[in-house]
Amino acid sequence: MSEQFSSQLLERAVDAFSGLPGVGRKTALRLVLFLLKQDSEIVKTFAQSILDFRNNVKFCKTCHNLSDTDECEICGNPKRDRRKICVVENVQDVLAIENTQQYQGLYHVLGGIISPMEGVGPSDLEINSLVERVKAGDVDEVILALSPTMEGDTTNFYISRRLEGQNIALTTIARGVSIGDTLEYADEVTLGRSIVNRVAFKEQNH
Amino acid sequence: MSEQFSSQLLERAVDAFSGLPGVGRKTALRLVLFLLKQDSEIVKTFAQSILDFRNNVKFCKTCHNLSDTDECEICGNPKRDRRKICVVENVQDVLAIENTQQYQGLYHVLGGIISPMEGVGPSDLEINSLVERVKAGDVDEVILALSPTMEGDTTNFYISRRLEGQNIALTTIARGVSIGDTLEYADEVTLGRSIVNRVAFKEQNH
Repeated sequence: MSEQFSSQLLERAVDAFSGLPGVGRKTALRLVLFLLKQDSEIVKTFAQSILDFRNNVKFCKTCHNLSDTDECEICGNPKRDRRKICVVENVQDVLAIENTQQYQGLYHVLGGIISPMEGVGPSDLEINSLVERVKAGDVDEVILALSPTMEGDTTNFYISRRLEGQNIALTTIARGVSIGDTLEYADEVTLGRSIVNRVAFKEQNH
Repeated sequence: MSEQFSSQLLERAVDAFSGLPGVGRKTALRLVLFLLKQDSEIVKTFAQSILDFRNNVKFCKTCHNLSDTDECEICGNPKRDRRKICVVENVQDVLAIENTQQYQGLYHVLGGIISPMEGVGPSDLEINSLVERVKAGDVDEVILALSPTMEGDTTNFYISRRLEGQNIALTTIARGVSIGDTLEYADEVTLGRSIVNRVAFKEQNH
């Protein structure tokens, strides 16, 4: 863009924001001018919290989730079921599953998904460390909770091969029609899978 | 939201971003995780440029545009036509008009618009300083370039009353800008034309 700001300070602040994903120049300008109206302490806290996060946040040495300490709160929580490991692609997925309040086991964050198109191979992901955790014993179930895409299926398959011979149950999260969705509007693949993978009525409604 | 982050640092960074206008928790999380992937120097520059802007940017003592110095680049530029003052609502409007490259005069940023609904009266705006600039002489035209809304019309009318008796041409930008549209989002050609084809204030309001 050919915009000429009357202020270098403004220019640099707009550049900073417009470097973020999904933020264009106009949105960046709006955000910067919003911050100008805020108390300078608020802006200081804003900048400091971002710096603190970037410089001090750690990845849990066990599950690779984001953490303030070497071991994350979930891995360090004695109330969690240490015999279950839920394998997810990224940190957002941990949050999504935690928000359901339906899972009390541990996690393993791969840090991505196998994608030949994007040049992401198994060695780029935390798969070796997952295998080590399982081999160390004390685990009786690994739950694969990756996206139901071709990459997800590939990654699931690769992990299942690496875990062959281990004395664990290997499961994937159920795929099916969303709760509250009408059959009419479910996509064919999902609906097809949910028929093939049907479960006993009593099992589902216990 | 009931989200529980495993990291306080993450929590605070997401809080910071989600305080921005139009940024929800999910977008904030995405932005924060994006910054985590960036080089720490880039994040440092990001935070620093925002702090520098907030702490050091000034308002031009003459036109109240954003500036790095006491007098902005436009007011200090000897090539600009000092006999014309274009009155705008805010800093974005200066940028919008500058981008048309159709105007070579000076500006006057009101810092808002008269709006009884939002409790903004004439004394909250830089109207007295505009009258002083005109009374000081050396000005032969004041161009009112406010948004064509009811508030804009009210402000135009108020300013025209305050400038009565001054030996100047009082014009408004041509209403090529669609009624109800704000200047910020008008396309450059329309906005440029509307400045070139500005009309006498009295002609328009007969």
